[in-house]
Amino acid sequence: MANWIIELAYGEVLSRDKLDLKTRQIATVAVLTAMGTAPLQLKAHIGGALNVGCTQEEIVEVIVQMAVYAGFPAALNGISAAKEVFQNREES
Amino acid sequence: MANWIIELAYGEVLSRDKLDLKTRQIATVAVLTAMGTAPLQLKAHIGGALNVGCTQEEIVEVIVQMAVYAGFPAALNGISAAKEVFQNREES
Amino acid sequence: MANWIIELAYGEVLSRDKLDLKTRQIATVAVLTAMGTAPLQLKAHIGGALNVGCTQEEIVEVIVQMAVYAGFPAALNGISAAKEVFQNREES
Amino acid sequence: MANWIIELAYGEVLSRDKLDLKTRQIATVAVLTAMGTAPLQLKAHIGGALNVGCTQEEIVEVIVQMAVYAGFPAALNGISAAKEVFQNREES
Amino acid sequence: MANWIIELAYGEVLSRDKLDLKTRQIATVAVLTAMGTAPLQLKAHIGGALNVGCTQEEIVEVIVQMAVYAGFPAALNGISAAKEVFQNREES
Amino acid sequence: MANWIIELAYGEVLSRDKLDLKTRQIATVAVLTAMGTAPLQLKAHIGGALNVGCTQEEIVEVIVQMAVYAGFPAALNGISAAKEVFQNREES
Repeated sequence: MANWIIELAYGEVLSRDKLDLKTRQIATVAVLTAMGTAPLQLKAHIGGALNVGCTQEEIVEVIVQMAVYAGFPAALNGISAAKEVFQNREES
Repeated sequence: MANWIIELAYGEVLSRDKLDLKTRQIATVAVLTAMGTAPLQLKAHIGGALNVGCTQEEIVEVIVQMAVYAGFPAALNGISAAKEVFQNREES
Repeated sequence: MANWIIELAYGEVLSRDKLDLKTRQIATVAVLTAMGTAPLQLKAHIGGALNVGCTQEEIVEVIVQMAVYAGFPAALNGISAAKEVFQNREES
Repeated sequence: MANWIIELAYGEVLSRDKLDLKTRQIATVAVLTAMGTAPLQLKAHIGGALNVGCTQEEIVEVIVQMAVYAGFPAALNGISAAKEVFQNREES
Repeated sequence: MANWIIELAYGEVLSRDKLDLKTRQIATVAVLTAMGTAPLQLKAHIGGALNVGCTQEEIVEVIVQMAVYAGFPAALNGISAAKEVFQNREES
Repeated sequence: MANWIIELAYGEVLSRDKLDLKTRQIATVAVLTAMGTAPLQLKAHIGGALNVGCTQEEIVEVIVQMAVYAGFPAALNGISAAKEVFQNREES
């Protein structure tokens, strides 16, 4: 079931090639930071953003930008999530 | 008062140069589409995205991507907003 | 573009037969009332609920129930939407 | 139906006397600004805040404060709503 | 205090007999999945849905349906919650 | 980075003297309860409200009031947060 959902989401929408992968991941990090209801998916996409070549600085910057649109608590929680992902990468 | 808010938001956060302007506008279009509570600001930022060089196709694409993260009604409303902005540009 | 979205949503997810159509429409009216960000889609689905055999009383009741989970303003806006749909049906 | 909802909300919860009326209205203006999904109720409660003795400056101030917690678009929409209510009062 | 809230919610609204209990629970599971801000209450209502006769398949299906209206992260989190509730039932 | 955010939020907006500190904290507890996406910040501001002289009863009351505007799950989660903060204070 969960597999089916992931296939639908990633297969049908995200594989479309009209936006480069870095921009897609940045947009996803932005929206998951702003919504604040899916912290596990946010961390997964912060990792995904690193995987497609975004720098830590770019990721932090888009999260900070969310303070403007969704408030400072959302941005602060996003930064905590990013720090956790960055530290896990460095340790492994 | 409103001026003060806009200055704060745009002066302190958005003028930081760690993300290029196109990526910033794409992230903003993404989050305002997903939140769905500020249609006027969404239209303003779709216009802003065009102004800094995003294509109509890229803007539509990030809005469609929001269907995955915030649901289809949010994406459909975002597409309506984009169509309206695109048509106003062509007419003027 | 919009057609593609609608096909994906309705073709892949909503055509699955594990829930009867009335229950699906009631769940959709519930969630769109609670979210409060897509009033046009809410009205469309209130109409859809009537089309698959829900009574006006059942629709109003699930909207009222949303007061418990999403607050009274969301429920009151949902009731306004329902009244508008019911009146349009009676007039036509 | 709508009457029943309003009675429940105002009769059971808001008549409790553990918070003064000004603070209650300020809290309501705050939350409706932040949620951004019930503009009519926001305007009604801005009027209600004026009725129980809040100044225009206090109302604008709590709306501006929401920029911190729910983002600038929410605060800007709240300020537009407040301006509209203030102007209607002055004209009547 | 909490007791008073629960009495109000369940005594005044949910005991009304205009919707059958299964439909009420399905609507509640739908909205709590979509909102994503009350995971404990979501699990309680998934249990409640089982108690009034909903099948596991029906519950999963309404949660999957929420992907359409509130996005895939909300639906995936809902499915995790459901799995946890189903496993606890089987073990006890 | 996080420091910069906190300075911006607290230095530019919250230090303005047009609302007394108790009312500001009550409004913040209200909105964080209603949004439900930043439980750590909610607890910090419940503590902040106590620090500037709000009583436990006032804090609980504004949280209960949020049931009207944002639903009972949000209010119940807010009450859990408040209980936790109150107990930690008594123990220390």
